[in-house]
Amino acid sequence: MQNLPQSIQNAIDALSDLPGIGSRSAERLVFNLLRNESGLDQKLALAVGALKENVRECPISFNYCDGEYCPLAISPNRNDRVLCIVETPMDLLAVERTSEYKGRYHVLHGALSPLNKIGPEKLRISQLIKRVNQSNEIEEVILALSGNVEGDATAYYIMDKLAESFKGRVTRLARGIPTGGDLDYLDAGTLSRALMDRREF
Amino acid sequence: MQNLPQSIQNAIDALSDLPGIGSRSAERLVFNLLRNESGLDQKLALAVGALKENVRECPISFNYCDGEYCPLAISPNRNDRVLCIVETPMDLLAVERTSEYKGRYHVLHGALSPLNKIGPEKLRISQLIKRVNQSNEIEEVILALSGNVEGDATAYYIMDKLAESFKGRVTRLARGIPTGGDLDYLDAGTLSRALMDRREF
Repeated sequence: MQNLPQSIQNAIDALSDLPGIGSRSAERLVFNLLRNESGLDQKLALAVGALKENVRECPISFNYCDGEYCPLAISPNRNDRVLCIVETPMDLLAVERTSEYKGRYHVLHGALSPLNKIGPEKLRISQLIKRVNQSNEIEEVILALSGNVEGDATAYYIMDKLAESFKGRVTRLARGIPTGGDLDYLDAGTLSRALMDRREF
Repeated sequence: MQNLPQSIQNAIDALSDLPGIGSRSAERLVFNLLRNESGLDQKLALAVGALKENVRECPISFNYCDGEYCPLAISPNRNDRVLCIVETPMDLLAVERTSEYKGRYHVLHGALSPLNKIGPEKLRISQLIKRVNQSNEIEEVILALSGNVEGDATAYYIMDKLAESFKGRVTRLARGIPTGGDLDYLDAGTLSRALMDRREF
């Protein structure tokens, strides 16, 4: 096997450390950057290097922001009576994309996972409980967490904590078949849940 | 839709300019970098920023190298009598991975494509002709070019140019069904070629 020039090998190694990018994809990206004459390599290097510079967690919602607060946490156009709990800022974006939700958010930055040594103290759960308890406007807390074991565990933990003092509704996302999904590709768990939760037309 | 912090948006934009990375994948990569605490963002920024610094084209094979010559072009362990022509340094790596080939290489840096305004003067074809003519060792030139129209056009053009003075063999890669390939997934062109070029057991 040929020894690649060091700078090419370094770039391939760094890119293949990213999730979902294997060494062959990394190779393809690097050779594309080498061929590219529009300065994409420098643009990418600068953008990635500056990525974390001004980014912090909003002290209200714990979403990423570059100002003092996340715009969603202080915008007067959002509904203060509903609070949506998500695991990550990416999940927040996914909920925003639906254009269905106009309330506030709280980002946990993960889910409980004893196997990976992620306990409640590593998440923004105490901040969530405090936020809910201090507010006298919140009427509903929506747990928009993943449909896996970690998401479920986190949901139960938060419900438990909230039950001590919060008198409003605590809801979670519906489980069922995905829109546009073929039944024969679905796992049994999803399908049996969709059967159990079936609804009248 | 929420406005993302500027530095996050910049990194997403730069990453989605890479081939094969859409905006959603770029988002996923950037949020992963933000969460990552091992300094991968800085490592990646440095590696990509320095990518082109020491990389040049070898004056013999036109492969990328960071020394004066590509190691493959000057290694005493390679066979000077065979010259393999590839379109890109990535294709060279692909041939090297087979461990089947021990000769020299010549990288064209592209293929003829009138539609994209890529004529012979943009490729390392004149250097190839000169290299073959000046050598009195080369006995075979292998055209390891893509199986598409551009690869074919390039192969015919080079054959024409070589015919003027080169007396050795000019060969090209076999066409046929890929190893491990299911017949019913193959396109008609590949299959009919494999039928035409069928061989005795």
